[in-house]
Amino acid sequence: MTLPGFDAAFREQLDLLLRWRRDVRHFRRDPLPEGTLEALVERACLAPSVGNSQPWRFVAVDSPGCRAAIRAEFEECNAAALAAQPEERQAAYAALKLAGLQEAPVHLAVFCDEQTRTGHGLGRATMPETLRASAMGAVLTLWLAARARGIGVGWVSILRAGRVAAILDVPGSWALTAYLCLGYPEREEETPELDRRGWQGRDPEAGRILRR
Amino acid sequence: MTLPGFDAAFREQLDLLLRWRRDVRHFRRDPLPEGTLEALVERACLAPSVGNSQPWRFVAVDSPGCRAAIRAEFEECNAAALAAQPEERQAAYAALKLAGLQEAPVHLAVFCDEQTRTGHGLGRATMPETLRASAMGAVLTLWLAARARGIGVGWVSILRAGRVAAILDVPGSWALTAYLCLGYPEREEETPELDRRGWQGRDPEAGRILRR
Repeated sequence: MTLPGFDAAFREQLDLLLRWRRDVRHFRRDPLPEGTLEALVERACLAPSVGNSQPWRFVAVDSPGCRAAIRAEFEECNAAALAAQPEERQAAYAALKLAGLQEAPVHLAVFCDEQTRTGHGLGRATMPETLRASAMGAVLTLWLAARARGIGVGWVSILRAGRVAAILDVPGSWALTAYLCLGYPEREEETPELDRRGWQGRDPEAGRILRR
Repeated sequence: MTLPGFDAAFREQLDLLLRWRRDVRHFRRDPLPEGTLEALVERACLAPSVGNSQPWRFVAVDSPGCRAAIRAEFEECNAAALAAQPEERQAAYAALKLAGLQEAPVHLAVFCDEQTRTGHGLGRATMPETLRASAMGAVLTLWLAARARGIGVGWVSILRAGRVAAILDVPGSWALTAYLCLGYPEREEETPELDRRGWQGRDPEAGRILRR
């Protein structure tokens, strides 16, 4: 078989997609078109996984009860995080909008099944953490596929993984990888919100290549 | 600002990219064009990261000494993994080519700096594992950018992370996220090698969406 030829025009568009991928916290409330979530999950399943273990698991959080419990969990964790900030950063932290849980039409929790037998354990004896990394690959793949449809994704991490698993009543071997909000963004931004608001800008050191 | 419009033709090409991303273990030996690795790392740095922490760190492994030590480490771990297989799977395991370390012109180790202060710890108090997930985002972003240039990536996980860090003499706070081989594939395949060789196929259950 032959890899389809990707030309310079495609690579330019892919670069735009990567640059505009951005985390979104300001969502419009209108729903995603019918079948969109299914299409995105289908693409997420194309991510690489250690030993072809496909450990990603998807939970769409639709019910008002579960959503309210997740929001309450976020509020509790966020209040604790604010209190733990050094004094000089508290005002800046309090001014940030760190989740769009209220407005986003779709909540999607992505888990990693740490007991999966798929792949027969291949490749993860020495680095079991590659299973979680595989689930994260599904998250980013879904994110890019969403953005290519004009849909924004926001990654909410100010949650206790165990609490989220309990609220959503998932099997005990499922560890939360990422809690995602999906919806159309209120506005588009190329620069990360944390950068625009002066919290943390681009770190040029992170992109340095060491040679060994 | 306005998100660039991504049209159906782009989404179709993106789908092809996701499907043909595949892990590669059979590389040609010819080098990548000058500046390619730098371009890929630049794109990897566009990945999402918790609190904009950008914890990814990149080490290009060029020296024959380091490469030989990594290959020896892989051989040792792979022999142990083979020995640990149930008897009925040993022959199948032994027949798999699980790394292209010998042929791939570029070796790139991606680490997560677990002590990074970038981002001031935002968003990771309750889920510190999001830092490693962020580094994995950089790995997958690099992988897709490579594939869009016809370059294959192989993820080698049959290594002890601590041994790799020691061989490459990186700071103590850096945890190995993924050891990657990069190069032009000997042949292109749409179906994962582990699937084609009967080790593990697509698991339709993994793509199911639970509703809560």
